Amino acid sequence: MAEPKRQPGEALPFERLAIIGIGLIGSSIALAARRFALARRVVLFDISDDVRAEAARLGLGDEIVASFAESVRGADGVVICVPVGACGAVAAEISPYLQDGAIVTDVGSVKSAVIKAVLEHLPPHARFVPAHPVAGTENSGPGAGFPSLFVNRWCILTPPNGMDGDAVARIRAFWEGMGANVELMSPDHHDLVLAVTSHLPHLIAYNIVGTADDLQSVTQSEVIKFSAGGFRDFTRIAASDPTMWRDVFLHNKEAVLEVLARFNEDLSALARAIRWGEGDKLFDLFSRTRAIRRGIVSQGQETPEPDFGRRKI
Amino acid sequence: MAEPKRQPGEALPFERLAIIGIGLIGSSIALAARRFALARRVVLFDISDDVRAEAARLGLGDEIVASFAESVRGADGVVICVPVGACGAVAAEISPYLQDGAIVTDVGSVKSAVIKAVLEHLPPHARFVPAHPVAGTENSGPGAGFPSLFVNRWCILTPPNGMDGDAVARIRAFWEGMGANVELMSPDHHDLVLAVTSHLPHLIAYNIVGTADDLQSVTQSEVIKFSAGGFRDFTRIAASDPTMWRDVFLHNKEAVLEVLARFNEDLSALARAIRWGEGDKLFDLFSRTRAIRRGIVSQGQETPEPDFGRRKI
Repeated sequence: MAEPKRQPGEALPFERLAIIGIGLIGSSIALAARRFALARRVVLFDISDDVRAEAARLGLGDEIVASFAESVRGADGVVICVPVGACGAVAAEISPYLQDGAIVTDVGSVKSAVIKAVLEHLPPHARFVPAHPVAGTENSGPGAGFPSLFVNRWCILTPPNGMDGDAVARIRAFWEGMGANVELMSPDHHDLVLAVTSHLPHLIAYNIVGTADDLQSVTQSEVIKFSAGGFRDFTRIAASDPTMWRDVFLHNKEAVLEVLARFNEDLSALARAIRWGEGDKLFDLFSRTRAIRRGIVSQGQETPEPDFGRRKI
Repeated sequence: MAEPKRQPGEALPFERLAIIGIGLIGSSIALAARRFALARRVVLFDISDDVRAEAARLGLGDEIVASFAESVRGADGVVICVPVGACGAVAAEISPYLQDGAIVTDVGSVKSAVIKAVLEHLPPHARFVPAHPVAGTENSGPGAGFPSLFVNRWCILTPPNGMDGDAVARIRAFWEGMGANVELMSPDHHDLVLAVTSHLPHLIAYNIVGTADDLQSVTQSEVIKFSAGGFRDFTRIAASDPTMWRDVFLHNKEAVLEVLARFNEDLSALARAIRWGEGDKLFDLFSRTRAIRRGIVSQGQETPEPDFGRRKI
């Protein structure tokens, strides 16, 4: 996997970068910003004392501070890395201390609701460039981060019309500097695309794992034992951070419910085909879905190894 | 991963083993039977000329024959490795040529329907021990097999009451010889357990990939690009063999539809919680599902590495 390289002499995207929220994404950004030299100084803050202590133990960033004010004071770049439901409150906390012209960005999986919540609080001089790196693992917390998390992943920016070009360019350089590919789209379209490629899959995975866990006719130990038949794949995303995902569903309600309705229609048709023994319909769908994976593998978004490369042969 | 070892001097499970059907499972058994010395001679047959040619090119087994008759003549063990809808027809083809007391087994993901279909045709002297190794990858065909596929996976046997103990013991030794853990259960219970841990997950994965592919509001290229947000996990099992899976759903209809009904009830409740903003309900479910994955990892049925170990950090 190629790692991003910055040219010698190229200006750093940021002089002083504040990262607020030290979970999987915040800690990965802290590690990547240092590894790829994207800011002269990286300052971290988290409202949890335990998380700050853990981040200090892990040696994340150059400095771990104990308040919102200290984190953003003098920062030319601020990345909000908290669950989407908390972005508005963080914006309110940092607003009084933001330096003139500071570029603020986020990493939320929902854009329209976050933009509305954040813009309510930011001062007019601050420049908000919403961003969403489509990357992650099922682990969370400051110990889960790693610097290559964003390499060859997409990061979607959804700047409002008329947003300052320099601010967008610096956020683009920042994400490209961490190895990501950057794409711009409207917040509404982002929320619909991600409802399909991320939110619905998580909802379905959480649901199927819950259903399996609740069945009295099949014990939980049987579900665990025989999970290699397919079920275990779903448990990975159903092990994702509960707070983060609660907030995603609550803040992208319309798009998620719309896509879910389509999923349900298709599932009813599939159930009907099974009930009436319509093998051709099943075969046609099952053949078509194979092609999608080939596309994902050929575009470098998935490993070509069988079974995700789980076992070395 | 520990590999199975047979004791020196221990009797081979089979003298002459016939494998009928050379897909992922048949080819893996052929490779494992040689690697772990489970039969003196391994004979392979497939009705497809192309598959037999490919198997010969790959050097699978000791001999590749061109008819059902040649494959089972003189064999003390016969493994039927074809889609479950074809097991009855294979049993009919091999019946006249089975040697007295031959042990016949299968690898089908459905047991009740397969047992019924096979027993209709087998001669009374043959001993049928139905089996299902809960293992596989999304790849298919004779080139997809590898000898360690069954190591540390479960293989479920569903012998009828009163089945000859020696036949069951030899099939057990055969699967344990390939590294599998063996468990016995009734065919009906097997079909319900697997509906939960394997058939429903496949149905849901096929469905969600189909839904995403059909949406006009989100392009296929966007689905592929941003698949790392969760969707790509589903594409792996939705890339599984279409014929095999068509047959599974058609032959385990009742159990699949029953489990699907439970899934749908739960999903409706989840959608309702999203619509009404009941964050606590979402959080509770999402916390509970995390624990299931920990169980699967701790029982050695899943890698503890984040993201299935897709990326080395």
